[in-house]
Order: sequence, then structure tokens, then C-alpha cells
Amino acid sequence: MVDSPKSWAELAPHLIAVAAGRAAADLVIRDARWVNVHTREVLAGHDIATAAGRFAYCGPDAAHCIGEGTQVIDAGGAFAIPGLCDGHMHIESGMLTPAEFARAVIPHGTTTMFTDPHEIANVLGLRGVRLMHDEALLQPVNIFTQMPSCAPSAPGLETTGFEITPAEVSEAMTWPGIIGLGEMMNFPGVMAGDDKMLAEMAATAAAGKTIGGHYASPDLAGFHAYAAGGPADDHEGTCEADAIVRMRAGMRSMIRLGSAWYDVESQITAITEKGLDPRNMILCTDDCHSGTLVNDGHMNRVVRHAIECGCDPLVALQMATINTATHFGLERELGSIAPGRRADLILTSDLRSLPIERVFARGREVAAGGEILVECPHLDWPADTRSTVHLGKVLAATDFEVPAQGRNTVRAKVIGVVENQAPTKALTADLPVVDGVVQGAEGTCQIALVERHRATGAVTNGFVSGFGYTGEMAVASTVAHDSHHMIVVGTSRADMALAANRLGEVGGGVTVWRDGQELALVELPIAGLMSDAPAAQVAAKAQKMVEAMQACGCSLNNAYMQHSLLALVVIPELRISDLGLVDVTKFEITELFEAET
Amino acid sequence: MVDSPKSWAELAPHLIAVAAGRAAADLVIRDARWVNVHTREVLAGHDIATAAGRFAYCGPDAAHCIGEGTQVIDAGGAFAIPGLCDGHMHIESGMLTPAEFARAVIPHGTTTMFTDPHEIANVLGLRGVRLMHDEALLQPVNIFTQMPSCAPSAPGLETTGFEITPAEVSEAMTWPGIIGLGEMMNFPGVMAGDDKMLAEMAATAAAGKTIGGHYASPDLAGFHAYAAGGPADDHEGTCEADAIVRMRAGMRSMIRLGSAWYDVESQITAITEKGLDPRNMILCTDDCHSGTLVNDGHMNRVVRHAIECGCDPLVALQMATINTATHFGLERELGSIAPGRRADLILTSDLRSLPIERVFARGREVAAGGEILVECPHLDWPADTRSTVHLGKVLAATDFEVPAQGRNTVRAKVIGVVENQAPTKALTADLPVVDGVVQGAEGTCQIALVERHRATGAVTNGFVSGFGYTGEMAVASTVAHDSHHMIVVGTSRADMALAANRLGEVGGGVTVWRDGQELALVELPIAGLMSDAPAAQVAAKAQKMVEAMQACGCSLNNAYMQHSLLALVVIPELRISDLGLVDVTKFEITELFEAET
Repeated sequence: MVDSPKSWAELAPHLIAVAAGRAAADLVIRDARWVNVHTREVLAGHDIATAAGRFAYCGPDAAHCIGEGTQVIDAGGAFAIPGLCDGHMHIESGMLTPAEFARAVIPHGTTTMFTDPHEIANVLGLRGVRLMHDEALLQPVNIFTQMPSCAPSAPGLETTGFEITPAEVSEAMTWPGIIGLGEMMNFPGVMAGDDKMLAEMAATAAAGKTIGGHYASPDLAGFHAYAAGGPADDHEGTCEADAIVRMRAGMRSMIRLGSAWYDVESQITAITEKGLDPRNMILCTDDCHSGTLVNDGHMNRVVRHAIECGCDPLVALQMATINTATHFGLERELGSIAPGRRADLILTSDLRSLPIERVFARGREVAAGGEILVECPHLDWPADTRSTVHLGKVLAATDFEVPAQGRNTVRAKVIGVVENQAPTKALTADLPVVDGVVQGAEGTCQIALVERHRATGAVTNGFVSGFGYTGEMAVASTVAHDSHHMIVVGTSRADMALAANRLGEVGGGVTVWRDGQELALVELPIAGLMSDAPAAQVAAKAQKMVEAMQACGCSLNNAYMQHSLLALVVIPELRISDLGLVDVTKFEITELFEAET
Repeated sequence: MVDSPKSWAELAPHLIAVAAGRAAADLVIRDARWVNVHTREVLAGHDIATAAGRFAYCGPDAAHCIGEGTQVIDAGGAFAIPGLCDGHMHIESGMLTPAEFARAVIPHGTTTMFTDPHEIANVLGLRGVRLMHDEALLQPVNIFTQMPSCAPSAPGLETTGFEITPAEVSEAMTWPGIIGLGEMMNFPGVMAGDDKMLAEMAATAAAGKTIGGHYASPDLAGFHAYAAGGPADDHEGTCEADAIVRMRAGMRSMIRLGSAWYDVESQITAITEKGLDPRNMILCTDDCHSGTLVNDGHMNRVVRHAIECGCDPLVALQMATINTATHFGLERELGSIAPGRRADLILTSDLRSLPIERVFARGREVAAGGEILVECPHLDWPADTRSTVHLGKVLAATDFEVPAQGRNTVRAKVIGVVENQAPTKALTADLPVVDGVVQGAEGTCQIALVERHRATGAVTNGFVSGFGYTGEMAVASTVAHDSHHMIVVGTSRADMALAANRLGEVGGGVTVWRDGQELALVELPIAGLMSDAPAAQVAAKAQKMVEAMQACGCSLNNAYMQHSLLALVVIPELRISDLGLVDVTKFEITELFEAET
């Protein structure tokens, strides 16, 4: 809020005066190659003048805009491109607060984000969304908030910290930084005409804002019903046909390259090969880990990748600037270098490799040579948001026991993790019983969902395979999509208890234990989801955490992500929640043991 | 209002049910070639289902949407294109009310119009705008109203019936059918930072609506200042460079083919030859006479013409559908055949010649084979709106005398009409004086501006050349842009008085007199601007009026239009207003006679 530019209308008298040469610009960039995303042109030898955070003049010669106090920069023929926009993302995925996320991505040229704080909504409800929204508005770049639509994601199958209601959606639509509704993940609900989901979408439409979509199914008949319900975009497509069917239906196809999403290459062919109008395709990240932000980049990585996939650089840039802005009703506010828009731009010497040499946001230089030049203010997060891991007691190894009195073996249902895939397999395993307690076996270890929102002390136990853990170990995480209780996976009940208690002690995060010792800890004190430390620190700790998992025998790609998704009770086949083991092919709670036949 | 469809959000439960096959569609069009303006594709063999006035399903097979009561139409492979949109126009130019205008254009496939009732605003003020707006909302097609911004067009140089204020603009923004601000013609005011103009634009921006532009000058430096002020579009460009500079500045270039505007061919080369992104170009008519509507068409004529100019038919259709809808923030409401949108479509057997075979609006067949199939309801226009020609007295020939006591000749300033051009020339002529009264001469006749808003009885007299009138005649018109007093041109002061009084008697219109007899009369009883008779009747009378002008010796193209623009005191060089003769190069009132040297 402190840093938001005044509206174009408020500034119009001054912008006109600058453009007409009656007042001095704040900044004039001379001799740039103006990358015009409206016309899809590069215009050499152009000048750009800004005033009060907005562009005032873009044309062949801004000499008349230069006066006392004008900062003049010679671009030396560099390309001036609009600041990059991320069309859909979750800040929490970086394990960072909005401030630290912004600080990490600004040097990569990201000046606008459309972010859905869905994770914190599950932990802290509307108040958590408001806090994210408020910190977002403190930043020197544009972070628009999509109001989360689906907490819980799967009503009846899990208990979240809070639930989001249509009335809360209506209320949020009046906040200054809310841009629309976050991804409507409950597509079966929409297809079935669920009142609550339709009420949330209606509240968003009534506010004239954009309804985010999420249709994660190959069922085309269902897709048509979903599209008729009102979502305006979708980022869950994975193949060319997905992208095409969405655009034909008048939705925007958001194609993502996240830390673990690789959906650009398979869909961008709708443009590069099929030649469809590119205006309805948008690039986004959805989920980026801090390590990706530190080592690889953010939207600059996505644009580069799109270009490597054969996309014309100007078209790729449109997909990360004006297409995104237009989608959210902001085409006259940002997303291009043109009079009146927020003065967000990047200077780069090459449109293909896209080095991010200088970044300007709202007319101010915010990064240069990969270094941030401005403050990204933190909110003073209230104490209770740093104390969200409510275990209700000190957990003991016995809390993780699965009893099976009077039996020698059981046939248990096992969540089968599949490398590089979000869906799990519903497997079974014959497990030994010792002293009335079921034991793990080669390749199958324990998983527990530890309730942490209401201090019930409840632990739901089950079994999981595919991680490859050996020895005596445990991994615990309070990032546990989407309800974000605590997921503990381990071969040792003693280590599971230690790991869980440790997270209770530090207020959440991820921890890896072996033989009664802590190997790694990523503290995520805010809502058990985010750190307010810088991205580099968090990335280093996360890297150590991954190495510790490997030291425990795990060779899976993205093992941590797999871990944190094991309670995501909307993706097949088998998951765990605070209410029990969940059969996500039938959307019902299921018994842990196979019925004896 | 009676016929507006419910909102998508209200209808979503039903649309979903139809798309999912749980409820029956109202209409299913089978075997169409779906012209998809989102992807710029033609998809053969597709079905389209509508329900409650909106599209519910567009896909390969809508068999599941067909139930009891569903009307099924076999398109037989015809192209299904979205109903056409006119991005900027003035209904009054057709001399027709909104209802009769709609009735004339629906058979041509126009289902959406963005109309600026600027003319009636000058005569009846905000109330006139509201009446137009209200009749617009009664129609079976979409007529959105742009709130007029500039009445008077030239403050201080003319007296309008009413003035539009920023407060009225704010008020109008709350009306259901207002889509934005009408063309901001006062571009010198914007460039100078005029408070009133900026306040009107700010009120529009605050309402989240679109600011229409009008920049009729080749001055590029001035253009940049105008663009910085906030107008979002412009339809005054006349050459390729105009179109390009507007699009580069992030405005939409509206290119027009009206009855007398031919600005498509010269500007569409920005797309067809320069290869710029076409998304920011929009087709419009601006002004169409009833004869054009009856004989040539409306937006179908414009699209055909764009195609003849070398534009890809799908791109031309985008320029008359989705581009327009997107510009006005309506891309999820209309402008494409896609789920949730208003079910406005045309069936045509050829995408180039574009025969308009069947027209559907809001899911209902509204025209077929050029014939209208629905009612276009009239408003009950209040009596005073049919009584707006207030002369204050019966005019006599003496009212048209230009006195010059004691002189034999005078050197008078003469408004020089130039064929096929809107600007006039400031000429002079030496005119004889007989009995103290200046006489016309070969090629130079009299012009009078007769005050008609406040019954002052005032007549401003002057001289005009270029019409070629001979004999004893007069032409009078209450269509007299933009203040719409009455313009009388004639060679005979007696006929001028007869013509003026005749318009006072019938409540306005256009009349042609010769030798004391009426040759032609077009009655325009509503505000002196519009008839509520059908377009064909009005066109026939207008044709007779043109023939009568020719019978009086005039061989000018568009003589009537030239006549009606002679009081348009914003276009150089010399005009007439109720305040006197106006020098539009200096924007000041000037003397009728040259100073004696």
C-alpha cells in the first residue's frame, strides 16, 4: 500500500504535462529497442519517459521530457521489455513470505504476480489470506491476490484449520489487492452444480473479477460442463489437446513451468505448430521452490524455455506480459510499455537468452545485474501466525503404532508413490505383526497424519512405499497439502515421534531424523508453511533436507514434494487425512486393512 | 431490460446441467462450421447448444443436450460466426431511433452496438441520453451506450440545448447499459490538462469502464500527450501511420467504414502488409445513413470490405467480434461462440461474401434471409422530446437579411465547402449591397444558424459557397452538428423563412424549398434528429431530399452531410454558430465582413 502508484486518472494531469514537455519526467531511458507487445514489434532507437511511477511517453525522442531532476539512462540499444508477469502461482510453494519471494524474483525480472494463498487459507482461513494480501501490497512490485476458493479441497474427507465460505469470498472481493477467485479445484463440484462453489464464482463475477480454473481430468464431456460454469482459465493442461480445447471454449490456457511442472513444451505446439492465435495462452509457474528461484530463475526461466521450445520470442513475451494483464482486466494498468501503465520494465541485451540486466518497477530501478536494489518490507506477522503447530501433547513412539491384536500378519493398504507423478497407486502389502503391532517391511514404511490445527492429539497411521528409506529414520513436514496438518514418514516410530515433536517445538517446517538425531531442519515458522528468511538461506536448508532424505536411502526425484502431497485427497488413488485413509478413486474414507477373505 | 439475458453466474447451474446432458438445451444447431474467434480456426462438423439465451455447449456432438422442447436446426455445414459488433457509432446518424436502427441492422447480422448518443445530448442533455439508453435496452440485441463526453463540443463558441458535466458522467456510469465514455473529442482540452475533461475521464476510469477517444489531428507530439491522458481507443485515424501509432501506444485502433467514412482500406495495411498483431484493431461504422443500412448493410458491409482489402476473413471477423468485446471488458459476455456467452450468432454459407442467412440473438432467431423476425420495441418518447424546435416566433424573410447600410459592396467571409472533405475553407467574396442589404452572388448563397433550443428568435447570418444552388431555393435542417440548432442555406430569403418555419411546424427534420414550394421533407420529430418510422421509409424520404437538393442545382457528393456539418465548430476553417461566425483555426468568433483597409 505504501508503494502503490496513484491511479492513472489521478496522475493524468502530470503524465500529460510530461508527455507534452511542460513538466520534467522522473526518468528517461534513451536509445532503447522498445519491445512493443501490443503490436508485436521491436522498435529501435526509442525513448521511454516515466513520471510518478507510470510511463508518460514512449516514442522516438523524449528530449522534451527531460528537465531538472530527470534521471537519464542511456540504454545503448538494449531491448526494453515489459516486466514479466506470473499468471498463476502460490507464494507458499517457495516456503517464503511474499516479501522474501518478491526479493528473490525481482532480480529475475518478475514485476507482477497473481498469487493464490491457498495453503495459508487452509491453516489460518480468511485472516491468513488477508495477511498475505497485506504483505503483498507492501512490495515494490505488483502482487495481486486470488482469493482461495477451495478450503477444504475435499469437504468430508479432511478437516482444515479453517474453511472458506462464499460470504468470505464476497468480502475479499472488496479488498484492494484481490484480483479474482483462486483456482476452482473442485471441478466435480462445479460439474455437479454444487451450490457453494457456484456461489463463490457468482460472488467473483458480481465483483467483475476473474474466476481462476483448475480442471485436472482428461474427461472432455466433463470439461464442457466445467467451462459452462464460468472458470476463465486453466493451468492443469498437460498436452496440446488440453490447451486447444480450453482456448476454443474461450478460456485462457495457462501453461506452466514450475520447479516440478513441465507443461510448456507439450502445449506450446498449439501455437508453434498448429498456428492458433496466441493471445489466449499465458505462461506461469504455479509452484516454484526456493532453490529454483535462487539457482534457475522465475518467469525469465519460463520465457526462455518457451523460446527454446520454438516459440517466437515476441510471442513468448506477450504470453508473460500483455496476455496476462488482459486476462485479469489490467491491460491498461500494466503488462506493456505504453503511456499510463505502471512503469515496469527490463533492460536486456538479448531477446532469446534473456539476461535480466536492469529491472525497473513503477519507474524505480529495483534490480541490476541480478542484485536487488530495494527493500521488500515485511509485515509484522502476529504471534499466533507463528504458533500454528498444535499437537496437544508430546508425541511418543506408541502414538505411531498400528495395532493388530491377535494376528501374525495383516494385508494392509499401502500408498504407492510413483516417481515423477502426482497420482499414487493403491497397493497392498502383507505386513508382519509383532506383539500386536504391525511392522513395516522391505520397501514399505509408516506414514502418519498428525493433527495440528486443533490440538486433538490425533494421529492417523498408515503405510507408504516407494521412498526407499532404510535404517531407523523419519521425515516430518507441516507442509502437507492441502489441509497442512503434519505428515510423518518413517521406518522408526521413535524417530517419527522425535521429528513430529521437533516441528511442534519450532513451529513447523520440515525435519529429517536418523538414529535419534536430527540431520536437517527447515524452519517454516509462519503457519508452518513459510520462512521469513531470505530465499538463499531457505534454499540452502532445503537442499540439506533433500540430501538428508537421500542419506536415509531415498533416491526419488522430488522426494520432498511427493512427501508433502501424500495428504492431497483430491488426487488419486490413495492418500491419508486426519479422518483416515482416503480412497481418492471413490472419494471415501477406507479401512487400513484389506478385509479378510 | 425486458429482454436482457440473466447473467452467466445466475444461469450457471442451468448451463452446466445442459452441457452435462442433465437438462435440455433450448436450441441445438448441428453440423455447423464453428468459426472460433479465440483460436482463429474453423472447426467443421460442430454442434452448438444454447439455453436461456446463452451458449451452453460448443463441441463435436451436442446430442446429449437435446431433450424435450429442444429446437434442432441442421446447419448443413454452414459457417457459424459470432454476431457482429459495431465498436463505435452514433445511432442518430441513421435518423432513426434505437429501435428502428436495430430493426434495420439485425438482418445484416449486427447483434451488438456501442453507441454514443452525442447528438441528442446536445439537444436534451442527460435526459436524452437516458431515453436513448432505455430504448436501447429494450431491444432484442445488445446496444451499449457510451456516455457523451463533449456537449458542447466547443465551449464558448456555441450554445447547446444542454451541457454535459462531470457529475452527470459519474451518474451515468451507474446505469445498467452504460459501457464507458463517448469519444473524448476535446483533444486540445486533454492536451492542455482541462479539468472538466480530465474529471469526466477519471469518473469513467473509477467506474472501471472504457474511455472512448477521438484524436483528429496529424500532430504526433500532441498525440502522445493525448494518449497519456487516458483515452483507450481512437477512430479518427485516416492512414496506416495513424493506426500504427495508436496501437503502439496501447490504444485500440478503430477503423471505420461509414456512409461517408472510408478509413479501412488505408489503415488495415498495418495488419495485412506490416504484419502487426491484429488484436488491437477494431472495425466500426461511426456514422451510417438510413440509405446505407437499407441498401448496403451495416457491419457485414464493413467486414466484407476489410476482406476485399486483403484481410484474412478470420482476422476481419475477430476485428468485428472478440476484439471489440475485449476492448469493452465484455470478452466473457459476448463476441464469440463459447460457453456462457450471449448466444448471438450468424449462419452464413461463405466467409468472404458473407451472406447473412440466419441471425440468432440471445438464442432466438431474430432474422432470416434479410427479414427481421422479432419486435424491436419503441419507447414511449415523452411529448416534449417531440417538440424541440423552439423558434420563438414565425420567421420572416427579413430575419435573413444581412444589413450593410450605406455601402454598395462588402467583402464578406464565406464558408467554402470542399467536396468530399469535412474541413471547409475560409474564403472571401465581394458581395453587392442592395437597399442596405447584402445580396448573394454567383456561387455564394446565404447560410443562417437559427437558434432553436431556447426560443430566442435569434438568427445568425452568413455566406457559404460550394453547393452550386441556383434559382430561388432554401434547405433547412435541424440536424446541425454538434449543437443541433437549425442550419438554413438558400438563395432566397423568402424560401429560407418558409423552410425554417416548416421545420418549426413539424418538430424538426430536413426540408427543401424552391419558389415557395416544398420539394422534400424528412420529418425527424424526436429531438429534431430522429424518426421513429422504419428505416426504409426514412431512407426513401432522405433520397427524395437529396434529389431535391440536386434539382436546386447542387451536384456535390454528400451535400446533405456537408450541410449538416456547417455548424461543427471544432473542424477548421470557418463555421457558423448561434454566437456568430467561427474561425476554427483560431477557435474564436470572427466578424462577417473583412475589415476595410
